[in-house]
Amino acid sequence: MQPFEHGGNIHLIKRSSPAGLLVDFSANINPLGLHVNIEQAIRDNISAVVHYPDPQAHELRRAIVEHYQVQDEHLALGNGAAELIYLYAHVSGKERALLLAPGFSEYQRACRAAGLHIDFAYLAERDNFAVDYRELAAQLPENGIVFLANPNNPTGGLLDKQQVRELLKIAEARNTDIFIDESFIDFVDAEFSCAGLMTEFDNLAILHSLTKIFALPGLRLGFGLFSARVVALIDQAKDVWNVNNLAQAAGVAALQQEEYLAETRAAVRKLRQTLCEQLEEFSQLKIYPSTVNFILLRLQNGMTAAQFREQMLKQGILIRDCSNYPGLDNSFVRIAVRTEQQNKLLIQALSKVL
Amino acid sequence: MQPFEHGGNIHLIKRSSPAGLLVDFSANINPLGLHVNIEQAIRDNISAVVHYPDPQAHELRRAIVEHYQVQDEHLALGNGAAELIYLYAHVSGKERALLLAPGFSEYQRACRAAGLHIDFAYLAERDNFAVDYRELAAQLPENGIVFLANPNNPTGGLLDKQQVRELLKIAEARNTDIFIDESFIDFVDAEFSCAGLMTEFDNLAILHSLTKIFALPGLRLGFGLFSARVVALIDQAKDVWNVNNLAQAAGVAALQQEEYLAETRAAVRKLRQTLCEQLEEFSQLKIYPSTVNFILLRLQNGMTAAQFREQMLKQGILIRDCSNYPGLDNSFVRIAVRTEQQNKLLIQALSKVL
Repeated sequence: MQPFEHGGNIHLIKRSSPAGLLVDFSANINPLGLHVNIEQAIRDNISAVVHYPDPQAHELRRAIVEHYQVQDEHLALGNGAAELIYLYAHVSGKERALLLAPGFSEYQRACRAAGLHIDFAYLAERDNFAVDYRELAAQLPENGIVFLANPNNPTGGLLDKQQVRELLKIAEARNTDIFIDESFIDFVDAEFSCAGLMTEFDNLAILHSLTKIFALPGLRLGFGLFSARVVALIDQAKDVWNVNNLAQAAGVAALQQEEYLAETRAAVRKLRQTLCEQLEEFSQLKIYPSTVNFILLRLQNGMTAAQFREQMLKQGILIRDCSNYPGLDNSFVRIAVRTEQQNKLLIQALSKVL
Repeated sequence: MQPFEHGGNIHLIKRSSPAGLLVDFSANINPLGLHVNIEQAIRDNISAVVHYPDPQAHELRRAIVEHYQVQDEHLALGNGAAELIYLYAHVSGKERALLLAPGFSEYQRACRAAGLHIDFAYLAERDNFAVDYRELAAQLPENGIVFLANPNNPTGGLLDKQQVRELLKIAEARNTDIFIDESFIDFVDAEFSCAGLMTEFDNLAILHSLTKIFALPGLRLGFGLFSARVVALIDQAKDVWNVNNLAQAAGVAALQQEEYLAETRAAVRKLRQTLCEQLEEFSQLKIYPSTVNFILLRLQNGMTAAQFREQMLKQGILIRDCSNYPGLDNSFVRIAVRTEQQNKLLIQALSKVL
């Protein structure tokens, strides 16, 4: 497995073994799927692809500002949230980055591309990979960026907002930014978001994906909240048409689906709980507590994650081998919380493989 | 008008004056419109947006390699061609840029974002803005990039391949790249493309948009041909999902439409010819010879481009005010070649406005 390989690449799998059913537990996408109104909005806007996207993304910006109660001046839109990680690292002007390990690998890749020196803050397995704020504060770089995720991927843990506030203050004195990836925050209650701190801190950046919660990763859509200075730098570092107009239309339709969002949160909570109970039947697995739509597991039977992935694939189940996460050895895997029926297929496959 | 404002922003116009018919002559999109097979491919792939795009863009790459007879190792795909201008300028490691004036403003914006020193090579109005290769060779920077366009936007002129070859040799000795934007080359015969020189020169870069010729600028799709070294640097400087999966599917379908491409070239040639003849009736306009689907015009009646644009807008026609192109004064405008019927509307509007 390559160091920067991700989950969700069903295309590669399908090319190498085109036959057979494949359920993707490797990407963390809303199990309720694409909402019919969002699908319709995409369909209705196909004829509009003959025009350039709205560079101001007027309607989408308004929808985001209203839905998330954020300030327009802080808002930058991305061709997926991932694009904004690269743009931010590139324009930041910082020298060092401190990354959680384990954590999403794109921070590392983007910081490397931007020429930042990278250090890791290793989360302790014995603490279920919870963030140790005191240790993090002690490691805070000068003129750097600390990349956090809320909830963290692949561990599923949430940040403590009060502790983040303290970190922001210490970081400010060191000319260091705190970047918090909230790409999965819509799967948990809004009160856990740190976006409200944007008005207090110029050194805070928040990343938000719209493709996991609304099940449209193929269309690419995300946003970031940055200081007005950083927003201007990001605008200058990219062309004005980066968000395609089907993504814009889908985003506007998506942010009207309040009911679907509430349903998703309730469904994911219930599905995760049931799935965890079923997973606990397998003594070969250690389950880490999750707040979100994916679960980190450890193989305790001597099987490697690569072997396990291969075996599960033979059962038509694609899972995420976590061996390439810094801070995890080759016994960790991640699974998404899928539908009741799909989760049953996962459990059946586990019974055969373990 | 802002220095980096483009044509094709119908959204801004529609917000300020939502009523009335608007024909967009400001964006240079295939007048034949979106082909039914391409539209169908987009429609058929909507349900696939629940999956991440193929990071390898396997099918699309194969289609491009076959259709354009280029080498896979030179190929980088972009979220629109414009994204690749920024990525290229960013990873180039060069210090200086030489830009044609007038020329597409994104080169300037991307070079500025990448911190390059920018100089202009001014094309002479008396030569109908043709490139003077001797003068260009004399201006070639050390450790720089020369941005050319073939055909050039907004002037519509083509490059001379033999002269480009000579330039590449001189540039090579100066550690300078030649970047040729061929975003409109599909509207002219393939023999005019400089892409064939890629196998000879490591310091050549070619940009190619797929959204003008296939009428899908809203979906964003383009590619670049670079040395394998630059391709690797570009891959590292961006996330792996930059080309959304509807754009990938549309691209694959598009490159099968050989007949539509031939029809487009024939239709544009004929439509441009007829339109030019009709435009020549207006002594208030000077018409610059074009090889492509847009025409540069100069107002000779003392009207400014801004005034003219405003008057045309009242007639439901959006044209491109070219005042913000370096090297053009406020008497230049650009119009796209549209359908026979739309071109008639343009001529009718001109009769009223001039």
